[in-house]
Amino acid sequence: MTRFRPAIDALRAYAPGEQPPGGADVVKLNTNENPYPPSPRALAALGAIDAESLRRYPQPFADAFRRSAAEVLGVDPEWILAGNGSDDLLTMLFRAVAGTGRAVAYPAPTYVLYRTLAAIQGAPALEAPFDEEYTLPVDALADAGAALTIVANPNSPSGTAATIEQLAELAGRAAGVVAVDEAYVAFADGSALDLVRRNDRVIVLRTLSKSHGLAGLRLGFGIAHPDLLSGLAKVKDSYNVDAVAAAVGAAALRDVAYTRETVERIRRTRARLGRALAGRGFRIWPSQANFVLARPADGDARRLYHGLREHGVLVRYFDEPGLADKLRITVGTEPETTRLLSALADLAP
Amino acid sequence: MTRFRPAIDALRAYAPGEQPPGGADVVKLNTNENPYPPSPRALAALGAIDAESLRRYPQPFADAFRRSAAEVLGVDPEWILAGNGSDDLLTMLFRAVAGTGRAVAYPAPTYVLYRTLAAIQGAPALEAPFDEEYTLPVDALADAGAALTIVANPNSPSGTAATIEQLAELAGRAAGVVAVDEAYVAFADGSALDLVRRNDRVIVLRTLSKSHGLAGLRLGFGIAHPDLLSGLAKVKDSYNVDAVAAAVGAAALRDVAYTRETVERIRRTRARLGRALAGRGFRIWPSQANFVLARPADGDARRLYHGLREHGVLVRYFDEPGLADKLRITVGTEPETTRLLSALADLAP
Repeated sequence: MTRFRPAIDALRAYAPGEQPPGGADVVKLNTNENPYPPSPRALAALGAIDAESLRRYPQPFADAFRRSAAEVLGVDPEWILAGNGSDDLLTMLFRAVAGTGRAVAYPAPTYVLYRTLAAIQGAPALEAPFDEEYTLPVDALADAGAALTIVANPNSPSGTAATIEQLAELAGRAAGVVAVDEAYVAFADGSALDLVRRNDRVIVLRTLSKSHGLAGLRLGFGIAHPDLLSGLAKVKDSYNVDAVAAAVGAAALRDVAYTRETVERIRRTRARLGRALAGRGFRIWPSQANFVLARPADGDARRLYHGLREHGVLVRYFDEPGLADKLRITVGTEPETTRLLSALADLAP
Repeated sequence: MTRFRPAIDALRAYAPGEQPPGGADVVKLNTNENPYPPSPRALAALGAIDAESLRRYPQPFADAFRRSAAEVLGVDPEWILAGNGSDDLLTMLFRAVAGTGRAVAYPAPTYVLYRTLAAIQGAPALEAPFDEEYTLPVDALADAGAALTIVANPNSPSGTAATIEQLAELAGRAAGVVAVDEAYVAFADGSALDLVRRNDRVIVLRTLSKSHGLAGLRLGFGIAHPDLLSGLAKVKDSYNVDAVAAAVGAAALRDVAYTRETVERIRRTRARLGRALAGRGFRIWPSQANFVLARPADGDARRLYHGLREHGVLVRYFDEPGLADKLRITVGTEPETTRLLSALADLAP
């Protein structure tokens, strides 16, 4: 007998973006972290954690966090399911819905974890290619008849976003569950949240990693009809969100003004970065996220990736079909962006 | 098309033990938390968390935590895989190893999550019954030929432990991966840790929830040959352990003296509780854990469970074959134990 399931033996582990040690003099623009610290209220909540919160098991459904998310979004708490990062929600979704004979459909290229999670479940992965403009392939996705259709919106690594009308059409035509992964929605002009009220097969996923500067804490949540969430809850670990994350995340969510302010700064820097890159001959896709996909004029993204690394600037390079000529660059602070642009000037061919 | 996989529709969600709101005047002896606070060093580590640790993604393999666990146990860090509680390790193990045609074998009754995880994977669950003394059914487990054999040792809810010789024999004879879930090992006389050095199909699971008073933080880890851990890592969420938990857990692990002291206190109270219950006519099983399984003389455990609840004392009652006449009682502080015994005296038939 093989030690692992054949699907596991065939799987290549997902390689997350490089994490240099803390304190290194590196401009880190490779994993889409928020360049600004979390809300002071989140830090105050961290300081208020007592020994008793550590000693006892947390609430299985992270009640305080759930209530905060529900209030901020204007839904009932029963419409919220919290997770250990939105990756945890994705894992629940794939385990509950996808499997042998129960396919997963998504546009490509996108967040590579979808392919990994489908493979782990032994589910067929139906990848509908984006065109050059990253237009959502609604027909191909709807016609796939998949048990689970998933769209990252805004998409990574393109930064582009489908319209809510396109997503509504897809949700209406798709056969099974439709997930809209809104990891980057705070930086976008619109959200698909209204779709969950109109369609009990739709789930919207959110994370506090990017918008709230809490990637280190692992907090995400899904918003959907309680019937859909109840199936996901069956496969979640009993105490999947720890007490510290729940308390700090709840405080961060409630500080709506702080989030709005930091998001606005990132959007302004994103505009500057896009203009600067375009001025240097890069092709830029219109970004609704906190990163920009950019193709250098000569298409030699690999050289730039390595060159930037030597200049102490980490960006993301995907050595994959359709992406090997592009870089995905996180929007940092203004000084970080200046340092990136200066390094790019040094590296000009 | 059904919304969820048929295995999910058929599943009843696991119901964890009741968690009363913080501040309630309740003696909580139902989920095997440590009655003592975590190490002062763990609290100091919590106080030292900065905004930058929250903002950035954590190390995918919780390096600092992994090194601490490795040093304390005297193994290489590559032999440690950290998880969001040991439930996360169990989830990885089942997802990587169990599935259709790849059965899971375990003695019964035991931690009910094993049955749930097997069902989610669509894996046959081969339950080998314990006898009245909770002797490990080595022959039945070894002869099952399962892809995954799992033994909670000490076992829950019995508190009993198999000998290391029994586990070594099982590991030698079992067909596939053998997991020893040592969630309660800190309170026991021996560990199966040496088996992982001798057999690359064996994994030992640990948690900081009970021994280190950190149930609220969700920290567990597996110890096994790196080849076995690499298969599990393929199915883990990329950043499964958050930065706060990793830092606080590392500090707690290193405070070996504090853990030894609190564990010794719990063992002393366990002895007192066992004597007191036996003196009141309960049948007691010899416990190597931080709880005691106890059968009242009249077998009416359900009445006692509800009566204790009315007296503000929560214990665990499993309404299942072989357990419905027993209570599982966590070992609390001395005053908590006094209050439990006083409530039991009030409830004497």
